[in-house]
Amino acid sequence: MKLGIIGLGLIGGSLGLKLRSRSHYILGISRHSDTCALACQKGIADEASTDFSLLTEAEVIFICTPIAAIVPTVKQLKPILSPETIITDVGSVKAPIVEAITPIWSNFIGGHPMAGTAQQGIEAAQSDLFSGTRYVLTPTENTPLQAQKTLAALTQHLETELITCSPDTHDQAVAWISHLPVFVSSSLIAACCQEQDQEVVKLAQKLASSGFRDTSRVGGGNPELGGMMAKYNKDAIARSLRLYRQQLDKMIYAIEEENWDQLEMILGQTQGARSLFTTKK
Amino acid sequence: MKLGIIGLGLIGGSLGLKLRSRSHYILGISRHSDTCALACQKGIADEASTDFSLLTEAEVIFICTPIAAIVPTVKQLKPILSPETIITDVGSVKAPIVEAITPIWSNFIGGHPMAGTAQQGIEAAQSDLFSGTRYVLTPTENTPLQAQKTLAALTQHLETELITCSPDTHDQAVAWISHLPVFVSSSLIAACCQEQDQEVVKLAQKLASSGFRDTSRVGGGNPELGGMMAKYNKDAIARSLRLYRQQLDKMIYAIEEENWDQLEMILGQTQGARSLFTTKK
Repeated sequence: MKLGIIGLGLIGGSLGLKLRSRSHYILGISRHSDTCALACQKGIADEASTDFSLLTEAEVIFICTPIAAIVPTVKQLKPILSPETIITDVGSVKAPIVEAITPIWSNFIGGHPMAGTAQQGIEAAQSDLFSGTRYVLTPTENTPLQAQKTLAALTQHLETELITCSPDTHDQAVAWISHLPVFVSSSLIAACCQEQDQEVVKLAQKLASSGFRDTSRVGGGNPELGGMMAKYNKDAIARSLRLYRQQLDKMIYAIEEENWDQLEMILGQTQGARSLFTTKK
Repeated sequence: MKLGIIGLGLIGGSLGLKLRSRSHYILGISRHSDTCALACQKGIADEASTDFSLLTEAEVIFICTPIAAIVPTVKQLKPILSPETIITDVGSVKAPIVEAITPIWSNFIGGHPMAGTAQQGIEAAQSDLFSGTRYVLTPTENTPLQAQKTLAALTQHLETELITCSPDTHDQAVAWISHLPVFVSSSLIAACCQEQDQEVVKLAQKLASSGFRDTSRVGGGNPELGGMMAKYNKDAIARSLRLYRQQLDKMIYAIEEENWDQLEMILGQTQGARSLFTTKK
């Protein structure tokens, strides 16, 4: 198939590498001509351009831009595409994207490949980024069946496990396991920064090891990305945070009341429950 | 030197292996005669017994029992030791231990080797467990200088970096970087368990990957250990939890008020601050 990829960073670049290796013809779009040249050189795209007109004959287009650019990109594409063109995106939040695009482009299906690395950009692109991971598609009752079938076949070429659910279910699930941890973890670092005793601060910095490192990792991530998650997935994240605070309050209450049985019961439950949230990659 | 080690688990066993390799003569004590036999066989101890009378000639005694057994152990040792014997412990909380033991045994110095593995018990003991880690000693103004010097020399044999501070400073520092993360992380798992929509729960469990895995790791640990930390370090942990909750509330407020600039500012600060809490091992 002729596939368009808009945004040739980690995700777009890795999609190009893998799908091209499965004999698809890749048309790449980047805002930067340097990136276009690099994409052709690295085997990410067969042709690449800064101009959307390259995509007029694409059968499926993956929008791999930052979330804020997804809807504007569809508006720009609309005049130059035939209505048969299937559009999908790779944004990490789905409901607001699907709601905004459906009235503009009916042949759209929201997507979210659950893959990534600490590195960003075209240089970090790798052919096997998606192998063994999960690819979420969020069709609605109005999504054409052909679009669903075509995307399902492409996720097989990516060697991913396809998961289909509603945009709202996706957004609440990622609020729990992907977005809530960021705010929980960031608040841990912020709290440690409230300590005024400089001797304690210096010692804490010196003694911090793997427990602190792991619990604070996602809280030390990209602030723009965290802000964007919150903006686009506000309701689900706010709900998760309020339920989190209730659980935290139970823990604080048990400690302040010296109710050690209650505290150990909670810790025992979470020890058991954690293993339910495991994954292969 | 003749060194006594009471409790031949991960920490006691590893101390024995390393100090014996530095030509100290190790007297090991365990409640179980099987463990005593194993300790001699594995080169952890030169002699081992279930009977404290083995320790009458020890110059320094390391108490490596669970926290609750440390003070009772000193009381049991008191009638059989000469007053020159230096006693130290390896408990992860210091102020209540130091306060309780000082009136019973003046030649005592609290200690906390900051090392560990996921495994427990004598089978997990390893000679290089402490190499490159930090060893905290918490002398008070009444601790004999000779005890401090002797312990400092032994920490060099363990190839650790010696850190000296007050028991209170130690306890507040570990509350921040070692104990608070446990309750923050456990509350994350507990919150996810509050979700009632089974489709969301199943999807969240399926999609959870490294971010959730790292943030929830220490919350999935041993409940007895977490309960014991809270019991022995209650004031410092409760203070850290209250300051944590304030930071969490700021985050929730920024999200609910859609104050994205404020949210990104907090996330930017925590991204920068995290690097201050790094360590070699």
